[in-house]
Amino acid sequence: MTSPALDVALSYHQAWTGKNFEKAMTYVADDIVCHAPSGRLEGAEAFRGFMGPFTQILTGSSLLAAFGDETTALLMYDTATIPVASAPGAEMLTVREGKIVELRIIFDRTPFDAARAAAAGA
Amino acid sequence: MTSPALDVALSYHQAWTGKNFEKAMTYVADDIVCHAPSGRLEGAEAFRGFMGPFTQILTGSSLLAAFGDETTALLMYDTATIPVASAPGAEMLTVREGKIVELRIIFDRTPFDAARAAAAGA
Repeated sequence: MTSPALDVALSYHQAWTGKNFEKAMTYVADDIVCHAPSGRLEGAEAFRGFMGPFTQILTGSSLLAAFGDETTALLMYDTATIPVASAPGAEMLTVREGKIVELRIIFDRTPFDAARAAAAGA
Repeated sequence: MTSPALDVALSYHQAWTGKNFEKAMTYVADDIVCHAPSGRLEGAEAFRGFMGPFTQILTGSSLLAAFGDETTALLMYDTATIPVASAPGAEMLTVREGKIVELRIIFDRTPFDAARAAAAGA
């Protein structure tokens, strides 16, 4: 089964996990709506401000599962980051005309909050 | 495309979101390994101790996406709970002989921690 949405989602994923965030942004629609743990983000610049800093602390990643159909892709992956050794995430991506128009991302903020608190207290 | 893993994953999901946790447990292998935000859980009883209490605070749910192949299913859903109005989750389930042998669940613990802290301070 071919999945246009999965093709775009994987291209985006490979770009940002490969530390090529500017290439990743080429798959992001200008009017993207992102549902993140911290809330709703609208537009590519807000999305850049959310995901860009994360790619700066990324040290590794592995894709655990990836599926998709005509319009929707679903990914689960693990990441290694400077503050948190294992930070898995899941994304549901809606793709229209080759661009990601909606992205719902789930991850656990708790270890990031703990690392930030530890750094502040150090 | 038929997916034996997705069939089992959806039966499990419908059971626990339908407040029939004992039926949900019939899809769980005795030797399940669960990767949760709080760490690794081994065995059906440990898994029951993790998911059972969550179903007690569940007030609603909606399945956002579900895909699968022969052995693996991937789900994303939103839940409403007593302490947290919107608590989305994602699960990757590995199925063998009709039972879930491995389940990786991702959700954000932060709002649950905040609700617990607020309740303790009330």
